[in-house]
Amino acid sequence: MDVKQYMQTLGQQARIASRALSRASTDAKNHGLQIIATELRSAADILKQQNALDLKAGKGKGLDAALLDRLELTDARIEGMAEGLEQIAALPDPVGEISNMNFRPSGIQLGQMRVPLGVIGIIYESRPNVTADAAALCLKSGNATILRGGSEAIHSNQAIAACIHRGLDLAGLPSTAVQVVETTDREAVGQLITMPEYVDVIVPRGGKGLIERISNDARVPVIKHLDGICHVYIDAGADLDMAEDIAFNAKCHRYGVCNAMETLLVDSAIAEQILPRLAARYATESVELRGCERTRAILKDVISATEQDWDTEYLAPILSIRVVDGIDAAMDHIHQHSSGHTETIVTEDYARARRFLAEVDSSSVMVNASTRFADGFEYGLGAEIGISTDKIHARGPVGLEGLTSQKWIVLGSGQIRE
Amino acid sequence: MDVKQYMQTLGQQARIASRALSRASTDAKNHGLQIIATELRSAADILKQQNALDLKAGKGKGLDAALLDRLELTDARIEGMAEGLEQIAALPDPVGEISNMNFRPSGIQLGQMRVPLGVIGIIYESRPNVTADAAALCLKSGNATILRGGSEAIHSNQAIAACIHRGLDLAGLPSTAVQVVETTDREAVGQLITMPEYVDVIVPRGGKGLIERISNDARVPVIKHLDGICHVYIDAGADLDMAEDIAFNAKCHRYGVCNAMETLLVDSAIAEQILPRLAARYATESVELRGCERTRAILKDVISATEQDWDTEYLAPILSIRVVDGIDAAMDHIHQHSSGHTETIVTEDYARARRFLAEVDSSSVMVNASTRFADGFEYGLGAEIGISTDKIHARGPVGLEGLTSQKWIVLGSGQIRE
Repeated sequence: MDVKQYMQTLGQQARIASRALSRASTDAKNHGLQIIATELRSAADILKQQNALDLKAGKGKGLDAALLDRLELTDARIEGMAEGLEQIAALPDPVGEISNMNFRPSGIQLGQMRVPLGVIGIIYESRPNVTADAAALCLKSGNATILRGGSEAIHSNQAIAACIHRGLDLAGLPSTAVQVVETTDREAVGQLITMPEYVDVIVPRGGKGLIERISNDARVPVIKHLDGICHVYIDAGADLDMAEDIAFNAKCHRYGVCNAMETLLVDSAIAEQILPRLAARYATESVELRGCERTRAILKDVISATEQDWDTEYLAPILSIRVVDGIDAAMDHIHQHSSGHTETIVTEDYARARRFLAEVDSSSVMVNASTRFADGFEYGLGAEIGISTDKIHARGPVGLEGLTSQKWIVLGSGQIRE
Repeated sequence: MDVKQYMQTLGQQARIASRALSRASTDAKNHGLQIIATELRSAADILKQQNALDLKAGKGKGLDAALLDRLELTDARIEGMAEGLEQIAALPDPVGEISNMNFRPSGIQLGQMRVPLGVIGIIYESRPNVTADAAALCLKSGNATILRGGSEAIHSNQAIAACIHRGLDLAGLPSTAVQVVETTDREAVGQLITMPEYVDVIVPRGGKGLIERISNDARVPVIKHLDGICHVYIDAGADLDMAEDIAFNAKCHRYGVCNAMETLLVDSAIAEQILPRLAARYATESVELRGCERTRAILKDVISATEQDWDTEYLAPILSIRVVDGIDAAMDHIHQHSSGHTETIVTEDYARARRFLAEVDSSSVMVNASTRFADGFEYGLGAEIGISTDKIHARGPVGLEGLTSQKWIVLGSGQIRE
């Protein structure tokens, strides 16, 4: 197989399909999503059969239990995929939204119209449900998509793709609107990220290594999320009960998620009051604490945090703690070590809350709320294709709107430049 | 000189300055711009002396008259730069604008705050006034900037930089907020576009060759404008007087600009009526017409357009003309040959106007107005750093808002995830 030629063909087909999709009606797109959901439910047995092939191969290759779990398609997960599609069908269609139409002194009427990006390439790892989720978000936002899943999920992904294609056909949409790469050759990724003539944006989903590799090699804009090193700063003006609840929730609500807190910063003025309370609370969940020297002067049992701890996304019941002298020191630490995902200040002080909001440069900045709220569903965006820690285009949770852009539109009555 | 080390130092200094600049008050930024304007006026003699060195070197190197003209700093151009800075000072500050604050079911209040991008690298060719314009746009939008002008303008650019630095100092802003690269070594560009740790976005301004080279090699997002192959489509439902005026204005108002029309598409239903009128009108300005065979069947003197003509940005009194069968053929031509800058339909037909607006995928899409309106001043954005033909982030004229992004902000009262 000539991988380059194959990927070029997928690209050409996607580019053509994207034009049809960009003008598809909301009704046609929703109808397509609903039919795909029905197809997935009807094909549950086939999906599980194909998935069993992947699971068997994965066990043979010695994949670990966590990876195998992510790979598995159960009845509940298939139903989850179908429901996910129906939820996306129920979301408002962002395409065609016209805003800010105003007359200019020349007499032209100027505004902006929301339009699809065109063709979106998505590169992801083991979870096969991403195939359905990502295809649905792209379809609803009027974009054609080329999906490249992990080689370990190839049979599952192809089976899901078959359901998607039947659904698109039945809804009268081009089946090339969603294409799943059929080869596991790694060269396919190299091609996908270097075809700016056919692909408008790449969304990588997976480990930091994958995303860094893709960002380095891409010749196409990348919407990416590297990691989530999120901070909670407990200010001297905090309500200590609230601070305890937020710091506990941000760490312990779920460990393996990008919006969990990894480092807690505590103002030295209240460290002696709040740290023992927090230590007792974290002990109930056996969270391992790693502290700076000033933390360890208060909490004797805490092990010493190294420089590396401040730059680590644990995704585990581990927390690094640092005592700082006020909000400037806290923001300095955040600027140096944050991944730009989400940070929270806990305070009742008006001026410091305002400064933190204005000066911290992360995709979400919060006052008196758990970092765990940085999420597409919590923000009312619906499903998200990822959480961007970039500054260009979309920041934070990227839902349907993040998969669109705005063009300028001008309505005139014969205006010319004098 | 170790160019890599030098550029890394500029990058580090810019990154530090960007934090100070992001929290600078509107008043401080405006004050800085006004002082820089004063400094430029006071330094007019020095600017002209330094500019004379560049002009002399340019003549020695055999630069053509057009390039030398662009390079020259006259009293009028220096005054123009100073006035440009004052106009940017008078624009509203986009930084800190908060929008869409709404309560979510969880009780958090969610919205977005407009923030600077951080550090912007600008690479441009001969015109020294870009040094002042670009620095001012970045300063007002709260971004630090690293400017790399053409080697042929190095003395002029350094003299302008000296005025900028004095102005920043006097306004109490870090002088490293605007840095002009002092070496003409080409390696400096290679470094500037591959330092994602210090530079958030690159804006290249210049010829297509420069921009393509930078886009290919950059490891940083690029806001770019490749070329402006703009179309006017005269629909069967057009008011022919209006069509003639718009088609004439779009071509002849100015030739060397990216929003000038390069190809005229005419519906075959009205070609015999409108083409002779247009030919007579273009003849008054000696515009060279190149037509398809159907055009030439009506206008006997027109030379034959080649395939290459449809893909050429003439920037000159030359126009290619194609007769098409209706709006679908017109939009097919546009999708195949447009650079995605600006297209206009002239029509009184409601449904076709609506289709053209929705389906044409360019940064500006117009009905019954000259393509020449696609411009930052005409759109009310003020000065522009460029006109983006990309789909990601900013499309069309990029002014102050295009140099910012939005972060999410959350105001809570102790909310945690259940």
